[in-house]
Amino acid sequence: MTKTNPGRFFEDFHLGQKLQHATPRTLGQAEQTLYSALYGSRFALQASDVFAQDVGLPRAPLDDLLVFHTVFGKSVSDISLNAVANLGYAEGVFYKHVFPGATLSAHSEIIGLKTNSSGQTGVVYARTTGTDEKDERVLSYVRWVMVRKRDPGAPAKEESVPSLAGAVPAAELRVPPHLNFDTLFEPALSGSSDFWNHYEPGEKIDHVDGMTVEEADHMTATRLYQNTARVHFNQHAEAKGRFGKRLVYGGHVISIARALSFNGFANAMTLAAINGGRHVNPVFAGDTIYAWSEVLEKAPIAHRKDCGALRLRLVATKDLPCAEYPDKNASGTYPDPVVLDFDYWAILPRS
Amino acid sequence: MTKTNPGRFFEDFHLGQKLQHATPRTLGQAEQTLYSALYGSRFALQASDVFAQDVGLPRAPLDDLLVFHTVFGKSVSDISLNAVANLGYAEGVFYKHVFPGATLSAHSEIIGLKTNSSGQTGVVYARTTGTDEKDERVLSYVRWVMVRKRDPGAPAKEESVPSLAGAVPAAELRVPPHLNFDTLFEPALSGSSDFWNHYEPGEKIDHVDGMTVEEADHMTATRLYQNTARVHFNQHAEAKGRFGKRLVYGGHVISIARALSFNGFANAMTLAAINGGRHVNPVFAGDTIYAWSEVLEKAPIAHRKDCGALRLRLVATKDLPCAEYPDKNASGTYPDPVVLDFDYWAILPRS
Amino acid sequence: MTKTNPGRFFEDFHLGQKLQHATPRTLGQAEQTLYSALYGSRFALQASDVFAQDVGLPRAPLDDLLVFHTVFGKSVSDISLNAVANLGYAEGVFYKHVFPGATLSAHSEIIGLKTNSSGQTGVVYARTTGTDEKDERVLSYVRWVMVRKRDPGAPAKEESVPSLAGAVPAAELRVPPHLNFDTLFEPALSGSSDFWNHYEPGEKIDHVDGMTVEEADHMTATRLYQNTARVHFNQHAEAKGRFGKRLVYGGHVISIARALSFNGFANAMTLAAINGGRHVNPVFAGDTIYAWSEVLEKAPIAHRKDCGALRLRLVATKDLPCAEYPDKNASGTYPDPVVLDFDYWAILPRS
Repeated sequence: MTKTNPGRFFEDFHLGQKLQHATPRTLGQAEQTLYSALYGSRFALQASDVFAQDVGLPRAPLDDLLVFHTVFGKSVSDISLNAVANLGYAEGVFYKHVFPGATLSAHSEIIGLKTNSSGQTGVVYARTTGTDEKDERVLSYVRWVMVRKRDPGAPAKEESVPSLAGAVPAAELRVPPHLNFDTLFEPALSGSSDFWNHYEPGEKIDHVDGMTVEEADHMTATRLYQNTARVHFNQHAEAKGRFGKRLVYGGHVISIARALSFNGFANAMTLAAINGGRHVNPVFAGDTIYAWSEVLEKAPIAHRKDCGALRLRLVATKDLPCAEYPDKNASGTYPDPVVLDFDYWAILPRS
Repeated sequence: MTKTNPGRFFEDFHLGQKLQHATPRTLGQAEQTLYSALYGSRFALQASDVFAQDVGLPRAPLDDLLVFHTVFGKSVSDISLNAVANLGYAEGVFYKHVFPGATLSAHSEIIGLKTNSSGQTGVVYARTTGTDEKDERVLSYVRWVMVRKRDPGAPAKEESVPSLAGAVPAAELRVPPHLNFDTLFEPALSGSSDFWNHYEPGEKIDHVDGMTVEEADHMTATRLYQNTARVHFNQHAEAKGRFGKRLVYGGHVISIARALSFNGFANAMTLAAINGGRHVNPVFAGDTIYAWSEVLEKAPIAHRKDCGALRLRLVATKDLPCAEYPDKNASGTYPDPVVLDFDYWAILPRS
Repeated sequence: MTKTNPGRFFEDFHLGQKLQHATPRTLGQAEQTLYSALYGSRFALQASDVFAQDVGLPRAPLDDLLVFHTVFGKSVSDISLNAVANLGYAEGVFYKHVFPGATLSAHSEIIGLKTNSSGQTGVVYARTTGTDEKDERVLSYVRWVMVRKRDPGAPAKEESVPSLAGAVPAAELRVPPHLNFDTLFEPALSGSSDFWNHYEPGEKIDHVDGMTVEEADHMTATRLYQNTARVHFNQHAEAKGRFGKRLVYGGHVISIARALSFNGFANAMTLAAINGGRHVNPVFAGDTIYAWSEVLEKAPIAHRKDCGALRLRLVATKDLPCAEYPDKNASGTYPDPVVLDFDYWAILPRS
């Protein structure tokens, strides 16, 4: 009856449910500029129209993670307004570059449900797809979130947990249309002479630098994505909440870590896929984010001699430099300073 | 003699005085993007070029309040640099949408003056008009401010208080050129299936969410509007001032409350008029803004079957959720947590 | 061997060394918008396309200091990642306006080296040039920085200190292409009726207003410039550093002071040269910046009757109003509240 959106509770989801998300959003050059200024990103492909044209594109594309956060943001009011936690991502595929002027929409399908043993919450699995103004897919991914039940006494749902790929197979990766490195650019332009062929599986790289999170920054970023999850914005309410303070949107941490990874992966210019990701500890304003990466796999791309894919694990910490690659222990438990474990495919030129 | 602007004092104003304000300003898509990121606004009309084109516009217009703040900001250095308080608004009319690329200028006429009984200050009434590069009006409104006298001993001015409309008559409201909802959009796009016909006078809606104000955010917003009022920016001076800290620009609070009102009025896409507004208590960084609305009137628009107007009262609070609609008491006194009482006409599609 | 950039140490520089800096950057209207919102700049030339067209330009150019910071930012990872201090600027020349859509690149040449007597550090002199997508120079300047030695025991380098001009000669100043004030604009538009002919050498102007620095603001600005100097971003590391907190990028202070100088020099619309500049005390978040200016010289420009150049000294302070023009003492020592002494040529219309 109410005209305001109370958010869906676990009982409000059913398998196969389709949700069209509000609000379509035109992303212009300004969104990219603000994104850059919030993270200090320096990847040449997104920074320079001329560089982008030199590798076949009409102009600089938007940052892949800006696209991801925009699509994700739209899904929040329909899926995760009453979420306790964002548990994970899988099967994220970037289908094409998004250029300034594109208008993105998003829809989701509920692909899995599981009542938690506590009876208080359940896990909702959704596949969310972002499309552009031509109704072409730009991105799809699965995420699963723990959502509160409206009524703890409501009967458990029939459990249906989707089978999700551990990683997007290298054979399914797409090089964005028109991108080619047949004529390799001057390494001084991109900031690194390390290309796809210079990395090996098992290699670990400390990204050295740290970035401190400010309340104004993470809130501005999260509002840029039109993500309305309440825990990020309302100090008055959160003062009485779980942590006593506002929680930083996990995606903000991914973007900080990705920007830090320029120092070591300046040529990892564009993302092809998100294999998985977990926010293993909360981040708050005042925390300083550090990051390190591990090369998990190295895959050629069919019919392409100009570029290849690296599967990278990007681990971020708070208030802990990463020279020693802080990581989960043998039993899979993460130490408190580790905040993110993110697994993605990047496309790099070959030299 | 000085080359710096000391601001006008009450003695420097006279009835009928005309002031051309500096600086003309081109508002691009970037201004809208930054505005969106500062408030998290999600109204579809301003967010999506495609949505805007589907309802007859050439592209997404700038947010009406961005236009208002820009015009207001220009008037500050000529009118309110020595203001003690911004007392109220009236007779605000939006004449047309402003699109990215427009260059706005502003001028004012002094339409009323009243010496306060204290002898220290006076009230200045100004009608400010914003025009675009074609010299067409985009907005006009009246505001009145309490301004310091240079010399408390200066003789009182002849009192002239303008007669101001309590509200812009519904018959004078304009639908922005080309906007039409003859073919209604899919409600999932705008985020609500509640249209003009679903609201009734007397209806109250709690907008539920809260947004905490940060110093960096309100200063960035106020600088975006090129508003130079000193109380917003200078902690060193304000530490010794009335409140001991920087005061948040009242318009920033209006924009936060308006963005919060999306949750309940997602289809109240564009403003037609500002009937009145009062900043009844100060807001500081750290305060969390909540808001609720009341439907005051519901008016059809002449010759239009596709849309109608709602006169809405938007009340904002600090650190007080609005489930119980906190309001002034019978004698018109506002409780301390109420910060804004804003009265406007919005245009909504009919379904 | 490492793939991350450890930054050059003093030993890594040699005379005549040429460095091509990453990353090329397209600056759009959005960069200017964000710049304006970070500083509240109100100069009409950069604010309004219509105003700019009225004085001969195709549209509003980017702020000269945005161009400076962008070019400077690119040089950081190659020159000053291990800098102890940025000691000074000289011989800065703006060759042409930069308009939205331009792509800037930067390169430097090492023109001087001097080992400090401590043996721990040395001074590196670099001439940095910014070019646009046509490979035309837009800016060049010299700066010198104190850089750590990797090995304090490394032998001293042969000293070579370049001879630098105390100021760019007035005869070498360039009016940006197409800019002309043959038809003078209405002073109410620019915000001042004081033109080139109204200022005299020796004249001092207090800019009155103050602007408090926030962590989010200076970090966002510095990231906008893709400046990666670590001292600005990492509270976790700086807590154990020299000051116990993050240091504000000196260029951010220049831009705040320049924006404040609008109040007194609204018609000093564009910079022709940077003669010198020193950051004489550090600035931290929470400091409130004030500024005053002194007219050092007044020079006509060859073959131009419509405009002239003023050589201005812009002095900024922290937490100290400038009504008494706080300055260095007779022995050249600056009091603690003085943070910046900046010497530049501006171009002003003649009336």
